[in-house]
Amino acid sequence: METSNRSAPPRPVIADVHPRVEDGRYDAKATAGELVEVSADAFADGHDLLAVEVAYRHESKRRWTRVRMASVGNDRWRAMIELAGPGRYHFQVHARVDHFATWLHELRARVAARQDVSLELRVGLELAKPALAKAKGADRAGLAEFVGRLEAGRTPDLADVDDHEITALVGRHHTTSPEASSAVYGIRAERERARFSTWYELFPRSTSARRGTHGTFRDVLDRLDYVADLGADVLYLPPIHPIGTTARKGPNGAPSRSKKDVGSPWAIGSPEGGHTAIHPELGSYEDFDKLVAAARDRGIDVALDLAFQCSPDHPWVTEHPEWFKHRPDGSIRYAENPPKKYEDVYPLDFETEHWHALWSALLDVTLFWVGHGVTVFRVDNPHTKPFAFWEWLIPTVQQEHPEVLFLAEAFTRPKIMKQLAKLGFTQSYTYFAWRTEKWELEQYLTELTKTDVADYFRPNFWPNTPDILTAQLQHGDRRTFMVRALLAGTLAASWGMYGPVFELCETRPRHEGSEEYLDGEKYEIRRYDLASPASIAPFISRLNAARRAQTALQHDRTLEFHGIDNDQLIAYSKTVPGSSGLSADAAECPVLVIVNLDARYRQSAWIDVRLDVLGLDVTTPYVVHDLLTDQRYEWRGSRNFVILEPDVTPGHIFRVEPPGGVLE
Amino acid sequence: METSNRSAPPRPVIADVHPRVEDGRYDAKATAGELVEVSADAFADGHDLLAVEVAYRHESKRRWTRVRMASVGNDRWRAMIELAGPGRYHFQVHARVDHFATWLHELRARVAARQDVSLELRVGLELAKPALAKAKGADRAGLAEFVGRLEAGRTPDLADVDDHEITALVGRHHTTSPEASSAVYGIRAERERARFSTWYELFPRSTSARRGTHGTFRDVLDRLDYVADLGADVLYLPPIHPIGTTARKGPNGAPSRSKKDVGSPWAIGSPEGGHTAIHPELGSYEDFDKLVAAARDRGIDVALDLAFQCSPDHPWVTEHPEWFKHRPDGSIRYAENPPKKYEDVYPLDFETEHWHALWSALLDVTLFWVGHGVTVFRVDNPHTKPFAFWEWLIPTVQQEHPEVLFLAEAFTRPKIMKQLAKLGFTQSYTYFAWRTEKWELEQYLTELTKTDVADYFRPNFWPNTPDILTAQLQHGDRRTFMVRALLAGTLAASWGMYGPVFELCETRPRHEGSEEYLDGEKYEIRRYDLASPASIAPFISRLNAARRAQTALQHDRTLEFHGIDNDQLIAYSKTVPGSSGLSADAAECPVLVIVNLDARYRQSAWIDVRLDVLGLDVTTPYVVHDLLTDQRYEWRGSRNFVILEPDVTPGHIFRVEPPGGVLE
Repeated sequence: METSNRSAPPRPVIADVHPRVEDGRYDAKATAGELVEVSADAFADGHDLLAVEVAYRHESKRRWTRVRMASVGNDRWRAMIELAGPGRYHFQVHARVDHFATWLHELRARVAARQDVSLELRVGLELAKPALAKAKGADRAGLAEFVGRLEAGRTPDLADVDDHEITALVGRHHTTSPEASSAVYGIRAERERARFSTWYELFPRSTSARRGTHGTFRDVLDRLDYVADLGADVLYLPPIHPIGTTARKGPNGAPSRSKKDVGSPWAIGSPEGGHTAIHPELGSYEDFDKLVAAARDRGIDVALDLAFQCSPDHPWVTEHPEWFKHRPDGSIRYAENPPKKYEDVYPLDFETEHWHALWSALLDVTLFWVGHGVTVFRVDNPHTKPFAFWEWLIPTVQQEHPEVLFLAEAFTRPKIMKQLAKLGFTQSYTYFAWRTEKWELEQYLTELTKTDVADYFRPNFWPNTPDILTAQLQHGDRRTFMVRALLAGTLAASWGMYGPVFELCETRPRHEGSEEYLDGEKYEIRRYDLASPASIAPFISRLNAARRAQTALQHDRTLEFHGIDNDQLIAYSKTVPGSSGLSADAAECPVLVIVNLDARYRQSAWIDVRLDVLGLDVTTPYVVHDLLTDQRYEWRGSRNFVILEPDVTPGHIFRVEPPGGVLE
Repeated sequence: METSNRSAPPRPVIADVHPRVEDGRYDAKATAGELVEVSADAFADGHDLLAVEVAYRHESKRRWTRVRMASVGNDRWRAMIELAGPGRYHFQVHARVDHFATWLHELRARVAARQDVSLELRVGLELAKPALAKAKGADRAGLAEFVGRLEAGRTPDLADVDDHEITALVGRHHTTSPEASSAVYGIRAERERARFSTWYELFPRSTSARRGTHGTFRDVLDRLDYVADLGADVLYLPPIHPIGTTARKGPNGAPSRSKKDVGSPWAIGSPEGGHTAIHPELGSYEDFDKLVAAARDRGIDVALDLAFQCSPDHPWVTEHPEWFKHRPDGSIRYAENPPKKYEDVYPLDFETEHWHALWSALLDVTLFWVGHGVTVFRVDNPHTKPFAFWEWLIPTVQQEHPEVLFLAEAFTRPKIMKQLAKLGFTQSYTYFAWRTEKWELEQYLTELTKTDVADYFRPNFWPNTPDILTAQLQHGDRRTFMVRALLAGTLAASWGMYGPVFELCETRPRHEGSEEYLDGEKYEIRRYDLASPASIAPFISRLNAARRAQTALQHDRTLEFHGIDNDQLIAYSKTVPGSSGLSADAAECPVLVIVNLDARYRQSAWIDVRLDVLGLDVTTPYVVHDLLTDQRYEWRGSRNFVILEPDVTPGHIFRVEPPGGVLE
């Protein structure tokens, strides 16, 4: 032991602090205004009682706020902390032996056993008097009588004493116990859209009202009301930059054979500019700024694509050949996955000797668009760029611009997807598109919402993307698309669709076994009949309206599955975090969703409603109010019968209302 | 980003390194000579292949040993490291992008697709040639031909190339990739008895052959052959120090009313001395030293009790009143759990201002007995002393005396028991005594052997102790005792019993509902008829002989449960770590144990042997050889019938032998 005259080391042990991502290396995620649950193991030797607190502060503030943690059994302690604004927060758990609380607890036992406590009263006085000496105002008043009785050698009237209250009072002003402290952990709070968002992706060049004409930002502006009516709040545009011509791809990804071919927007860069330029046919910076402003007026963020790769015609190829890999003959190495070759794309060499300049340039690209009002980025294939790059870029941007959100477009191995989320991506694409059976949906959502993954990984559920037309959609019809939309929009607080092909229920793949769209917009300009009676846009609008109306649907962690005795039907609920169930406030009610996974046939089943989860009791009837159809049913107890007909509805979004009704 | 001209940060990510106790704060446990599995997640961006290694060293050595880790899927890597001697080891996982391995992997794809690889050969040459330049001897020979072909512009004969081998060769001599490194973690290796031990507890004062006489160390020496015959290798003696007279307890814990009462050995200290003194009636230091030496000759460690508390007559009470808590009237505070009072015990005040002197004195006590050859301590109620105290004392002792082992006698809340193990206790008492049903045994053992708990917590299973005569034993008979011995000795690599009352199957509690023995040795001298025909000592000897003969029974982590369709029968196996199953070496064979939990009635069932666990195939017959009865059965496949009659045997310890027999 190091020789020391200081007091003995603190007796409490603090362990397993939550949230704690990868031993504290990364920040947990939260949103501003949200109550965050902090928990930890804390215990000491012997039988003494503990005082456990969590201290937290915004990283820009010096003062820590302290909140008392409550014991929840098995040596676990818990408190809720509220992160007022966006930014990084530090938090730390502290514990000390509470000699006063222990004394009071034991005094009760002694008094109950009618022991002589005269000596014990003097012990209590020694513990409490210094606190009274320091306390002022209400605290002083709260202590005075208690201490006065001890001083007079009289036993306090224990029936009137609130142990928690007086213990907190004494502890606030005086303690002799050394405090044990956990490591300091981090939580990043982002704005609410980080947690709750509705994405809509469209190709601007396909938005012209006139056939055969390249769409422009002005056309997109004209489309904004449509997007807003759908209920979207993030409008994501694939790359808007000049497109290379070298090795340009034509329709369906085949080599281009026509000068009219427009190429892939992801083949970024031409003599007209690179990642900070705008494709001339889309419009000007001014047009873009107007679009961003008009979208904002409708509560919509315009999201751009960060696709950090170049066409062979990108200005950087000649200005910064040192940012690319070269082959022994001096040529720049194009993208390959041997034996496959992608000669229209030059990957950037993140390991170049000149990595510092390259990384800075990519930060500049990002900040350039932030300067144009862009507050959301969808990041293309982040898993093919170094993790360290994102781990640096994202917080660097957010330091000055905490409103900026990043969605990771990584469809890859599980640990890699998780790592991107850990290091800072706000939201992540998921495997949802391929999870179609009840068991696998339940298993996947349980992992996402009930394990530590929920501390850092925010799923964004997309039923389709320009690269993903799943086999289920290919072989389905509009009823299938409704099922997938309903699942995405109610299982996850964030979901998105690639339109208009989604709401128009386009099902044709490039070929059997391919997940690519036939004649996909990646290589062509398309034109759509948005007014088609086949469109499920009205359904999507109702779905998204329900998401906006019900706070419960805006959170992921409270998802719970309910038993339902038919594998084609899935039932789950969401509640408002921290609420105990039924509410007279419509927005705060629990939501119970039942989906018919079979888009063709009517299915029925008995549902076994988990009453405890929804704050219901066995005897009182309650109303389930379908927000899709506005129908109401009175239910009672856990066993209730459900029947779903695909031609009528893909499912129910039930608001669970108390029998007395709700205030809308 | 910090400005820097160094190379870009390493691309691999390393996470979830195992074994890692509480984020690396504590050491994992192992035994000298054991192969320890190290695993970690490791992955990088993109498709490049990785080279992953674990480096380790004894803390006294400077040089790290590096072992290549192998990919086991899902971005997980694994290697076995061998910790040669006792002591602390450091280990760390390293990963780098392996450009040569990636190049070779891609070359295969290019060659298979008949692409022109002439440029690629030059890339490979750039990667491999610097390695050849540095390699010598066999490494040089291994590289020369490969590099020679590249140099000549000829494609290597890939059919003859072992990718792992040549990649390792190149990597050993040349790499350009920066290496990512995990944190450094610790493993403490102790001697084998830390993992595999058989304890026997007896009260020395009850060992005299003459009725009414206080037993001595010489009597214990005479008992050693009996203990050795039982198969014990740790002989644990309750406190051997002078016993206080103030507030002495008499038979069954009642206040003493007779001068003949011998008192509780845990009321340590009298005018004759304290924790370093020997109770005069037991003998001298010389007698003790002789006992320790004679035990060692039989392969037995003598274990003493570290019970850090004092009787009111302990010399420290007058020499060091500052080491105790005082009441306002100046009296020393006796032990209490209000309203209960324990006036014969003064707890030490570990929080005293003079904690440093107190803690040092307790270390001195420990080292005093180490100086007398004591290498094992059973620590009394460690959970009523500060965790920081043990976290300092144990490694301080082990630093100079790595052979010293500590068993934590804590029967308390789960997290506290785990914490004691984490901070350094070699072995721990457990809840085994109260786990009697199949489901709870399976659940408890799964936690102990299949979760991270196994990294730091070594269970020691005791069916009884002087404080614990369970209800099951009270209502059982010798058949019950055999069941409990068989479970303890085969479920856990370490087990112990408090004898002779255990082997003599004493069942009488102090009163109904009490777990205390009637007329227990804690307060009285007892005398036993070891030759009683009711003794199960012969059974215990056979059980322990099987434990010594079978390496599988000396480990905990390979425990696996097998299905058996009767809740009264439990079936489990153990295998030698790292072995793949059947062995012609008898000691290395898997062991399959089947126990009849019902000590009264015959039970039968079909067992569903997990063939994969034992390295068996579906068609080949195998022999199960009962080491308790020496009977052999030929079995085939997984479904086999078992019948167990309590009057014959409590179960089977089957050695699973290959059809060709084994070499004993």
